[in-house]
Amino acid sequence: MQLGACYYPEQWPREFWERDARMMKEANFNVVRMGEFAWAKLEPEPGLYDFAWLDEAIGCMDKEGIKVVLGTPTPTPPKWLMDRYPTIYQKDKFGRTRGFGSRRHYCVNHPDYLALTRTIVQAVAVRYGKDERVKAWQIDNEFGCQDTTYCYCEKCLAAFRDWLEDKYGTIERLNEEWGTVFWSQTYRDWSELILPAYSVCDGADPDYHGHNPSLVLDYKRFSSDAVVRYQQLQIDLIRELSDKPITHNLMGHFPEIDYYKLSEPLDFVSWDNYLDYPWDVPSYRKAAMAHDLMRGVKNQNFWVMEQQSGPCGWNVLADTPKPGQLRLWTYQAVAHGADGIVYFRFRAARYGAEQYWYGILDHDSVPRRRYREIQTTCGELARLSPVLEGARVVADIAIVKSYDHLWSHSIQGHNRNFDYTRLLQEYYDAFSAHGFNVDLVSVKGDLSPYKVVVLPAFHLSDPSIKEWITRYVAGGGTAVFTFRSGSRTWNNAMTDQTLPGDFRELCGVEVEEFDSLNYGRRVGLRVNDGAAFASVWCDVLHSIGAQTVATYSDEYYDGEAAITVNDVGQGRAYYIGCDLDEKALRELMGSVAGSAGIQASPISGSGEGIEIVRKRKDGREFFVVMNHSMHEAQISLNGLFAELLTGSSANGEFTIDGFGVAIFE
Amino acid sequence: MQLGACYYPEQWPREFWERDARMMKEANFNVVRMGEFAWAKLEPEPGLYDFAWLDEAIGCMDKEGIKVVLGTPTPTPPKWLMDRYPTIYQKDKFGRTRGFGSRRHYCVNHPDYLALTRTIVQAVAVRYGKDERVKAWQIDNEFGCQDTTYCYCEKCLAAFRDWLEDKYGTIERLNEEWGTVFWSQTYRDWSELILPAYSVCDGADPDYHGHNPSLVLDYKRFSSDAVVRYQQLQIDLIRELSDKPITHNLMGHFPEIDYYKLSEPLDFVSWDNYLDYPWDVPSYRKAAMAHDLMRGVKNQNFWVMEQQSGPCGWNVLADTPKPGQLRLWTYQAVAHGADGIVYFRFRAARYGAEQYWYGILDHDSVPRRRYREIQTTCGELARLSPVLEGARVVADIAIVKSYDHLWSHSIQGHNRNFDYTRLLQEYYDAFSAHGFNVDLVSVKGDLSPYKVVVLPAFHLSDPSIKEWITRYVAGGGTAVFTFRSGSRTWNNAMTDQTLPGDFRELCGVEVEEFDSLNYGRRVGLRVNDGAAFASVWCDVLHSIGAQTVATYSDEYYDGEAAITVNDVGQGRAYYIGCDLDEKALRELMGSVAGSAGIQASPISGSGEGIEIVRKRKDGREFFVVMNHSMHEAQISLNGLFAELLTGSSANGEFTIDGFGVAIFE
Amino acid sequence: MQLGACYYPEQWPREFWERDARMMKEANFNVVRMGEFAWAKLEPEPGLYDFAWLDEAIGCMDKEGIKVVLGTPTPTPPKWLMDRYPTIYQKDKFGRTRGFGSRRHYCVNHPDYLALTRTIVQAVAVRYGKDERVKAWQIDNEFGCQDTTYCYCEKCLAAFRDWLEDKYGTIERLNEEWGTVFWSQTYRDWSELILPAYSVCDGADPDYHGHNPSLVLDYKRFSSDAVVRYQQLQIDLIRELSDKPITHNLMGHFPEIDYYKLSEPLDFVSWDNYLDYPWDVPSYRKAAMAHDLMRGVKNQNFWVMEQQSGPCGWNVLADTPKPGQLRLWTYQAVAHGADGIVYFRFRAARYGAEQYWYGILDHDSVPRRRYREIQTTCGELARLSPVLEGARVVADIAIVKSYDHLWSHSIQGHNRNFDYTRLLQEYYDAFSAHGFNVDLVSVKGDLSPYKVVVLPAFHLSDPSIKEWITRYVAGGGTAVFTFRSGSRTWNNAMTDQTLPGDFRELCGVEVEEFDSLNYGRRVGLRVNDGAAFASVWCDVLHSIGAQTVATYSDEYYDGEAAITVNDVGQGRAYYIGCDLDEKALRELMGSVAGSAGIQASPISGSGEGIEIVRKRKDGREFFVVMNHSMHEAQISLNGLFAELLTGSSANGEFTIDGFGVAIFE
Repeated sequence: MQLGACYYPEQWPREFWERDARMMKEANFNVVRMGEFAWAKLEPEPGLYDFAWLDEAIGCMDKEGIKVVLGTPTPTPPKWLMDRYPTIYQKDKFGRTRGFGSRRHYCVNHPDYLALTRTIVQAVAVRYGKDERVKAWQIDNEFGCQDTTYCYCEKCLAAFRDWLEDKYGTIERLNEEWGTVFWSQTYRDWSELILPAYSVCDGADPDYHGHNPSLVLDYKRFSSDAVVRYQQLQIDLIRELSDKPITHNLMGHFPEIDYYKLSEPLDFVSWDNYLDYPWDVPSYRKAAMAHDLMRGVKNQNFWVMEQQSGPCGWNVLADTPKPGQLRLWTYQAVAHGADGIVYFRFRAARYGAEQYWYGILDHDSVPRRRYREIQTTCGELARLSPVLEGARVVADIAIVKSYDHLWSHSIQGHNRNFDYTRLLQEYYDAFSAHGFNVDLVSVKGDLSPYKVVVLPAFHLSDPSIKEWITRYVAGGGTAVFTFRSGSRTWNNAMTDQTLPGDFRELCGVEVEEFDSLNYGRRVGLRVNDGAAFASVWCDVLHSIGAQTVATYSDEYYDGEAAITVNDVGQGRAYYIGCDLDEKALRELMGSVAGSAGIQASPISGSGEGIEIVRKRKDGREFFVVMNHSMHEAQISLNGLFAELLTGSSANGEFTIDGFGVAIFE
Repeated sequence: MQLGACYYPEQWPREFWERDARMMKEANFNVVRMGEFAWAKLEPEPGLYDFAWLDEAIGCMDKEGIKVVLGTPTPTPPKWLMDRYPTIYQKDKFGRTRGFGSRRHYCVNHPDYLALTRTIVQAVAVRYGKDERVKAWQIDNEFGCQDTTYCYCEKCLAAFRDWLEDKYGTIERLNEEWGTVFWSQTYRDWSELILPAYSVCDGADPDYHGHNPSLVLDYKRFSSDAVVRYQQLQIDLIRELSDKPITHNLMGHFPEIDYYKLSEPLDFVSWDNYLDYPWDVPSYRKAAMAHDLMRGVKNQNFWVMEQQSGPCGWNVLADTPKPGQLRLWTYQAVAHGADGIVYFRFRAARYGAEQYWYGILDHDSVPRRRYREIQTTCGELARLSPVLEGARVVADIAIVKSYDHLWSHSIQGHNRNFDYTRLLQEYYDAFSAHGFNVDLVSVKGDLSPYKVVVLPAFHLSDPSIKEWITRYVAGGGTAVFTFRSGSRTWNNAMTDQTLPGDFRELCGVEVEEFDSLNYGRRVGLRVNDGAAFASVWCDVLHSIGAQTVATYSDEYYDGEAAITVNDVGQGRAYYIGCDLDEKALRELMGSVAGSAGIQASPISGSGEGIEIVRKRKDGREFFVVMNHSMHEAQISLNGLFAELLTGSSANGEFTIDGFGVAIFE
Repeated sequence: MQLGACYYPEQWPREFWERDARMMKEANFNVVRMGEFAWAKLEPEPGLYDFAWLDEAIGCMDKEGIKVVLGTPTPTPPKWLMDRYPTIYQKDKFGRTRGFGSRRHYCVNHPDYLALTRTIVQAVAVRYGKDERVKAWQIDNEFGCQDTTYCYCEKCLAAFRDWLEDKYGTIERLNEEWGTVFWSQTYRDWSELILPAYSVCDGADPDYHGHNPSLVLDYKRFSSDAVVRYQQLQIDLIRELSDKPITHNLMGHFPEIDYYKLSEPLDFVSWDNYLDYPWDVPSYRKAAMAHDLMRGVKNQNFWVMEQQSGPCGWNVLADTPKPGQLRLWTYQAVAHGADGIVYFRFRAARYGAEQYWYGILDHDSVPRRRYREIQTTCGELARLSPVLEGARVVADIAIVKSYDHLWSHSIQGHNRNFDYTRLLQEYYDAFSAHGFNVDLVSVKGDLSPYKVVVLPAFHLSDPSIKEWITRYVAGGGTAVFTFRSGSRTWNNAMTDQTLPGDFRELCGVEVEEFDSLNYGRRVGLRVNDGAAFASVWCDVLHSIGAQTVATYSDEYYDGEAAITVNDVGQGRAYYIGCDLDEKALRELMGSVAGSAGIQASPISGSGEGIEIVRKRKDGREFFVVMNHSMHEAQISLNGLFAELLTGSSANGEFTIDGFGVAIFE
């Protein structure tokens, strides 16, 4: 198991380095990440390279048995470079240049920056490509962070036009797919095409500039592809000079880049995991699904390249992690498939925008509670490495997560309370509450391992997708569709089929009408004998073969079908025409899983923060049980289990501490 | 009666057209609007016109007896045109170009666009000016929508300077009227004048850039006049080539264009009526006043050119209209003076920004509930056309609605909770609740038909206005003034007279001081024997002849006069020094109307959603009674009435269904 | 005592002037401010001066015995000037020019504007420098108002680079102090330096562009210094030509300019005091602290140059001052050290942005309640002038207020609910509630007069500061530190010392960890025997010598020290590791004051709005007691006192009217 920290030797006096390396070793670390923001130190003057300090820093680490993940320094081109090539700065949708002072201030489509990237990456790769003290490469850092996926400069416009020509071949085809006849937006030539920049818009809705939704979706696809292409440039350079594995640090639920595509050429995925920072309400469930997504995008185990190790924030600080939480979060990562944990950062920075992003150590270098907790945790992990490392998560259920769908939903969200990612989370949580693991899979991904596949708000479709999911159901799978499914073409036009479009026959149902719920409206349902409610969307269903699972109990569509199921071949297809309250969705998914033959978990817990992950390695099966609440909780073991952390054994009721972890085999 | 839909043949396959026309005929339609966004189809290359497709589409309609309202295609200049004349794009107050991708991306003051407009409108008018299948013309589409009234480009600056020179003649006069001596803003020459663009401002109040309020008001007047002038250009061209009637589709309460001026050269007014869309809380009362305004701006019956026919929205959707609502809304339009109803749109668009603006048909062309309801409604209307078409609304009461006043109030709103349009609505609703119809009339409009005229927050004045209203009162009319009246000159300077300025003698009252109520303050009043309260504004009044109607019961002005009435000649003038809660205002306006000799309505209803409109045609008088609530309600008939929809007769209590309509004669 | 009004003769007809002067005299005025916005009248054409009208206006005043405070007209350069020198306009952080139409539309770093300033100021000073009718000079008007402190134009960039070179000497020193190695932001040369303008940022946090906090702090310092330098230019010119005293009208709590530095070269401070305007909730306590700050920045009595005299606002109006409030606010100013009161403005403007900023008179010139109240008040003040004028506030307690600290806190606020100015106010109020006066003092100011000195959130430090406060404590003083103290260097880097850094030995305490409280969290404390709570921040303390005053009663740090006190030499140092609820802070500060030997006030009152200021002059000591509530209240007099306003005497319980004032000797 790889354990370590992010470290910035360039930010600290030379005399700190040996002591720091020693403290890392004492914390049971064997890896350190460095270098990704050091361009100005590596190339202090144009063309003049200085690797001496980095050699020395790597050497200090090596002396303590710590290997290096080396980042390419492209996220922070130095000021001298930007002064020489000022058009490299990104432009925003208003055409304003986004100047110096932060990071990632470059356009990935700028030919000059591609050339400059080649030069610096090559220099670094030549120097360290064969260096055995270097364990792996990290390309750049957090692509897209700080709102840098979308640029509106002239180079992007040219690149977008090329991308569109590649995709559509003829301008007539583009006009047809986009339906540019609407509002006289027909393009006669590729050179007439635009970026979805500032346009006439309504002050009431300033972010929505009335652009053609197909244009906007393609721009989002293009922008994601441009990042993937930029990464590939660096990968290709490194592969020529090094055989070390290559990764990039992703950002979990970050919505702007298609992480399936980004991770495809990488040797392994790593990601940056902050459970409690100032921009979102902390949620261990979101973190759980993020881990599963990070495992899912490449369908293999991953690293956490930045694991939270202290309170953090930029101008304001989130709460300080409580005793036990750093250990708990580490185990959660490992449970969901992390084979490497690199804490961010070894010590808080004294300077710059991240002064308040605390590390294992505070600014004064004194090892305190957080250091000790991480030290202990890494000791445990090192000991349990033979069973934990490389173990696979066992999942009978998959949720289809698609960036194309996410982007389209972000352009037109149907209802102010609709959120694609939250809908996925709701389904994810509904299964988790039963102790069922869930894989995240791509559109047209391999569904053969799964008994149940959920396709939430799966509105973009095409014939190949229809065939993919139909074949899965016919072969015995259970597919779960929801409202909005099949409502659009792959290029974001509305289908002219009766809804759910491509999934109409499969689901055996037609959407007679729908109702978007505004101003706090709630619509009741009867599900089996229980009452439930929708608060976002209601499809009124008309069966063309399906059986009714639930009906509405409110509104003018009182009594009409809300949820149906249709037997097809050896499988079945559910259509869930509305959102559901948490309890109803949990019960419904429990019954869907049961009907699909998924066995109940032998370990269960009813506490608010109980999380159970079932794992398998070399024929051994074990369960990582976590308590994310600060209070102790009871879990039930159906059978006799060995608890691997304590070496004890347990059966029946088991008490787990607040923020506690247990591993049962 | 004209009944129909908006239709975009260019957006649908050719083979749809005959079937669509047939379905329209079956829906009892006799009219269709088309063409207003089709420039790129009509002139696909510069100077190359293609009318063949439009001829064919018009022909398909004609075969089913459906006539066409033809829109001029100027709201959406094609991309090739904008590429050739890029300075035609509007600029916002920060000087940013508002680029391609939506619609209305042109400056009405740009000479090149005026020339281009001439060419395309002439081409269309030459082709269809005498075509008997064309029933009427629509100029452009929804002037000002999507925040396009105000442009800050160089052409606008030049045009504004000309407009000011025309208005003021000498720069000295402008300096004097505007009081530019304040803050050293004196202009020495017309070429020094500015647009009220981005300036030094306070971050706490980013929309208010501290500009001279007289400058801002004149800029708003100029911007409205510029649209009127642009429309006139098109009207003049068409009149030369066609004798069909000309309209434009207005937007009800849209505040930026003086609709009195815009409708003056039109043959009839039409407007776009959406009662439930995502940008405002649905309110049938607002719709009612909007209809009356649309009737009032030209003082004649009108069309609804876009009548809501389904759920709608751009990125998010409003609630779906419930069964009965489409019919109810149609009758409301007819009750208030609509002689034509054109539903928007025949079928929802598969492409572009309005994919979620549902029409009579969904994207799949299947006729469902909404189609059937509209079909039935139009059948009824066709049958009742002899009595309904051309009938006049009977109103003894008028509210003065002024765009100049609206604009001035929007610059300086007195109090955060003050809203001119809402104040008008409050008075409107206070009369409606008694079953009294209300006309909306212009400043210096003809008041002779009215027993009561209300001038809410009528702060801009000049000697001719003073004379106009004084003569009305002296001749026996009842005028109702409110707080802020007479406080400003016509050019937005503060009066130096004691308030209410020009209306001081008429009202027989002086404003001793005022109090703007902030932080949720409420001030009590004694009106007759009842308690009431103000929550926005209190004028403390000092009588110079008037009698006290109400006094304050709170604050240091406890006991001082709040509302007064003054007998003048054969009439009287009320001064209402504060806003009033709903109940108090309703009672007060009931008593004002009673004192003015207005008879109670023979039909009354107490339900929340009951609306009654009294109509007259050819000596017949009848009442359209509507229930905007989803629950049935009781109404009282004082006498025996025939119900025209059912052919039954009724007396005394009558039950009206939820969303129901009855017409009593 | 100087009493008067702000007056704009240029805005009123010539025939008003004598009458206005007479009314001022009758209001007991002896001073008037004028001229500060009159550039366009004084220089109507480039180089053509017209002083005739001003001579005449000054003459009218002089005839009634009223002297003039003459403003230099630089806040409003005329349009002709801006047209000639358009680069003088400020630019915002997006590079957008902030154009004409408001005021202060100039960059203080623009060489052309400095030259133009010299010319106009010299012209005015030549004309009036020796004029005995002129009593004093006001430089410009409200530096920084309307968001004009920060400009991002090319001249500012150049000036900032010079300022940095002056400060740091070598680029290496700057790089080191700022820690530019973070994110590769190293500068090789002064010409590479930037302004903290628009950069890559996160849409979630649009104001925080991720700039280096040391850069941002220096930019704020530079911007403040630039204003000070611009003022000095004018002061130097006037001193050469006039020996009248010079002032500038400051803005109380305005945060952007270091008022210690700005007031240093002035002969006296004046400021603009509005207690009830639309941009803040009215608070007499904020006004009290603002007065004390205005006294503190120069450590001498001051004038109020604009004292609110009516309801005010720009586009919306605040509440109208109630009877008694204008008098009360005047006495509050005098109590806190005002020797001059100039009401803003004599009469409300009919034109321009401030039409709704009401004066003593309304637009119609009729003297009403407000005129009479001010007339009476000024009569009283004139009578009591011998005792009131020049009297000093007696304070045993000081709070250190530092603009450097304020700016740093505004860049990184630690916690969303942290606000430096509010924290100062909380401590201020805690002392005021006991009837203790508080001085505001500067960093390294003279602490010898004080028994207690509070340094709230005093996070920036350096060795000289450490020595300054350590010497004070050693000599017998009581210092009160709070959370965040000592956490940063003077140039905004994080200290590498264990917190509280420079104050660790002095406080005898170490911060073991901290907890920023989000999402409404509250953490309990035990202070003595009482319960209290924190809601923003908790430092967990570890004593290295200090005694514990309070411990936490919640969270994982239950039982750990929250507040400590350390005896050092003859004094003591408190460390308060968290924010405190109002009651707990009041009690704690009472006990801190008591322990430091501060005597209880002989006059006390428990009402909500009771304020007591202890004053001394020529050996006489008296107390100004004010009731800011509208209800009468009881106060207790410990001993026999003469009441100076009524000439009566009192002992024991005394009833003070709502909005009442009493002066006890």
